[in-house]
Amino acid sequence: MPEISVVRDDLPPRQAERRHLISIADLTRDDVERLLATARNFENAVDREVKKLPTLRGRTVVNVFYESSTRTSSSFELAAKRLSADVMSLKATGSAVDKGESLKDTALTLDAYGPDVIVIRHPHIGAPQLVARVTGAHVVNAGDGKHQHPTQALLDLYTIKQELGRIEGLHVAIVGDVLHSRVARSNIQALVLCGASVTLVGPPTLMPRGIEAMGCTVSTDIDAIREADVVYVLRMQRERMLEGANYVPSLREYTARWGVTPERVRPGQKIMHPGPMNRGVEIDPRVADASDALIETQVRAGLVTRMAVLYDLLTHGPAAVPAELELEVAS
Amino acid sequence: MPEISVVRDDLPPRQAERRHLISIADLTRDDVERLLATARNFENAVDREVKKLPTLRGRTVVNVFYESSTRTSSSFELAAKRLSADVMSLKATGSAVDKGESLKDTALTLDAYGPDVIVIRHPHIGAPQLVARVTGAHVVNAGDGKHQHPTQALLDLYTIKQELGRIEGLHVAIVGDVLHSRVARSNIQALVLCGASVTLVGPPTLMPRGIEAMGCTVSTDIDAIREADVVYVLRMQRERMLEGANYVPSLREYTARWGVTPERVRPGQKIMHPGPMNRGVEIDPRVADASDALIETQVRAGLVTRMAVLYDLLTHGPAAVPAELELEVAS
Amino acid sequence: MPEISVVRDDLPPRQAERRHLISIADLTRDDVERLLATARNFENAVDREVKKLPTLRGRTVVNVFYESSTRTSSSFELAAKRLSADVMSLKATGSAVDKGESLKDTALTLDAYGPDVIVIRHPHIGAPQLVARVTGAHVVNAGDGKHQHPTQALLDLYTIKQELGRIEGLHVAIVGDVLHSRVARSNIQALVLCGASVTLVGPPTLMPRGIEAMGCTVSTDIDAIREADVVYVLRMQRERMLEGANYVPSLREYTARWGVTPERVRPGQKIMHPGPMNRGVEIDPRVADASDALIETQVRAGLVTRMAVLYDLLTHGPAAVPAELELEVAS
Repeated sequence: MPEISVVRDDLPPRQAERRHLISIADLTRDDVERLLATARNFENAVDREVKKLPTLRGRTVVNVFYESSTRTSSSFELAAKRLSADVMSLKATGSAVDKGESLKDTALTLDAYGPDVIVIRHPHIGAPQLVARVTGAHVVNAGDGKHQHPTQALLDLYTIKQELGRIEGLHVAIVGDVLHSRVARSNIQALVLCGASVTLVGPPTLMPRGIEAMGCTVSTDIDAIREADVVYVLRMQRERMLEGANYVPSLREYTARWGVTPERVRPGQKIMHPGPMNRGVEIDPRVADASDALIETQVRAGLVTRMAVLYDLLTHGPAAVPAELELEVAS
Repeated sequence: MPEISVVRDDLPPRQAERRHLISIADLTRDDVERLLATARNFENAVDREVKKLPTLRGRTVVNVFYESSTRTSSSFELAAKRLSADVMSLKATGSAVDKGESLKDTALTLDAYGPDVIVIRHPHIGAPQLVARVTGAHVVNAGDGKHQHPTQALLDLYTIKQELGRIEGLHVAIVGDVLHSRVARSNIQALVLCGASVTLVGPPTLMPRGIEAMGCTVSTDIDAIREADVVYVLRMQRERMLEGANYVPSLREYTARWGVTPERVRPGQKIMHPGPMNRGVEIDPRVADASDALIETQVRAGLVTRMAVLYDLLTHGPAAVPAELELEVAS
Repeated sequence: MPEISVVRDDLPPRQAERRHLISIADLTRDDVERLLATARNFENAVDREVKKLPTLRGRTVVNVFYESSTRTSSSFELAAKRLSADVMSLKATGSAVDKGESLKDTALTLDAYGPDVIVIRHPHIGAPQLVARVTGAHVVNAGDGKHQHPTQALLDLYTIKQELGRIEGLHVAIVGDVLHSRVARSNIQALVLCGASVTLVGPPTLMPRGIEAMGCTVSTDIDAIREADVVYVLRMQRERMLEGANYVPSLREYTARWGVTPERVRPGQKIMHPGPMNRGVEIDPRVADASDALIETQVRAGLVTRMAVLYDLLTHGPAAVPAELELEVAS
């Protein structure tokens, strides 16, 4: 069968109004629902073994990661490739950054290549906004310090919606080191926006003051997770233990008091984790490997959600949901 | 001239029976011959300046290298690109691995992207089997510890067959550090399978006990190489010298006793080496640069052999030899 | 709209007469003008939002960087991708180089893959010639020691011509560490070749003896830059300061005496810098950010100039200027 290749000719030029995905706070509930619907369409396409879509052919996506993350960077890279975009992935080490160049100058340099989208992960809060301000690209925040990681929240919502059919009215417990977690912040915002109720569970030393203002409740009793429909386990960053900070007495003690074990969950509760997991620390391997664990589903959701984000940023207007994707039949 | 692009529509879906290339022991002689014939077809295509084939368009190949190897990883990467697959290359450093994630969890994460093939190099024996067990991808072993490196053996057989017309009945001497060499193990198996006779030559300290059970003979006399049709020189891993282990008294002494020099070979013997060479250690530069040396031929063979392996894993059944490749006329 | 994809069928086979870009000294003025005209054509194509050209489909470009450089390596990578070539980017660290392989053997290995172009950056002068001698590829020097960086000079000439309409008769001042700068050497040659006059300005310790033989003049008075049409500021390599060498008493003193500040330039002078900039060292941020600064224009010029170089090497003869590019309508 000859290849049928239809290329969209309605993509707006790069000079058109730019949009970014920097924080969940930038999105309305309609935006979130449109993105999840778009991701669903992409997942259907992937399921049909039509993995490669010509949607973004001729577009350039630049990934700039100032912190290492195979998981997130490869997810964005593959998402862009599935949409036929050209991808350039840059790591901060071994680059001009080491030669003392400022983020602003690096951003200006990248901008001169005319990328359509810049995906950036950076240890400093606000780095994506800076890049958005000095470049002509659409900017996607792939994690900035303790602030935001919006595509993680979107893929988590996508996962929940696919598994439980809805988000509205569900109860989600987020367990662990909320204090240092951009994943927690983005998820609280997104879940509350879509009508879920959120309980944060963890030691008081790892709970940011005043976090309730985001619309969630806080519990320092691990048994509070039993009431949730979804138990979202945060990664315990070993680095925290090494800092000499007294966030937690020891990893062993943390696990004893806050580890998510088979005894602490009940059948039917869905278990999520953003990865990479510390098996035996914040999550018991028996929980991680149980049929109610959605961890691989989340990774798969990451791919189609990021495809949806790239697609959505590069198209716009009321027709942004690709009701009928134009497909390249590739296999 | 307009591009003529014909895409195979008979590739099986990802859910079909999976096959792997983990050890030469998995292959029959027919399998080896089919792979070599396929590689030959690809070499013809490359020679005709039709470098890019649409065969695996829409397929995704993920390379995961836990040990550095420009040679092997770039060979797999280019092989996949020549077949129009999407390629993602991951290195272990700077990745989730550093954050303490287990190989199993990394494999599950990769699997969630739905790759068709995972190519893995890992310092631990058995890592490719683990990946094959927990993922839905075809797995290719690109080297696991001291165990196997099957595509190296296939490319070496391909090289020998192209140069000498046959493998059956030839005599191959493998010289050097057999003890630590997965290349040696894979080559012994593959050569014996295809009817060659193999003599291992090197110091007793670098010869695994009982290796004769693989169907080869052992000699501790360097002059034994003179009788061979092919002298296959193993890389002397400098790391071994640094371990304080008494495998070899010194590099200088190793070279004096076991180095492959012009005096020790005879005209017409073919010289092979898996690279990278330590010129002046295990191989004399005059031997490495002589017209009987096939080292670059081996690298070229690596490309078409790996194309054949990827092609073969993703197609199957009796028609696996692409007698008539469908070509994209690209130049 | 169906994709219209026209592939050139007049590209010469790899065995045809090879050409390289190793030094500006290899080029005639006609060569430079042809390359700049080709780059201009590519820039027009990029401006029309037709970013992806099928010109080099099926061709393979290998980038080998023995020194880190995000700027140059990503520019070559994107240039090759825009022309639809397959690109493989190799870094020296973590590669066979670490295992003691010689440049010659690495080059022979790369050559066995049959790349059309090898782009190389290497700390040793002459490395690109070695690669050209032992491989069958067209070689582009992306910087060899203190010797040459010819694509930098071409992109600078392109920038000047686009901004000022000509090169002939202009006066360019090159300021700073000429001694260690391959950028300076390449630019002096290229500018003089095209009829510009060049003044080198900087401390005597950073000025190579006898440099006037290249056809330029030397001044040790920073005020000499006021007379130039273009002030080209060289990067002050911080590494030089750490060597204990007495090139410059201190960075602070260097900045006081040789920094390009608003007081030292006059309105209308164009300011250039090869990047990455040390803001506040060799260039004042107010100068770097002024409207007369062409630094981002240079980066953009790098992309189309490198597209032109790749295109030009892989085509040849009197019709090398692509008067009518055959375009793939990609968006």
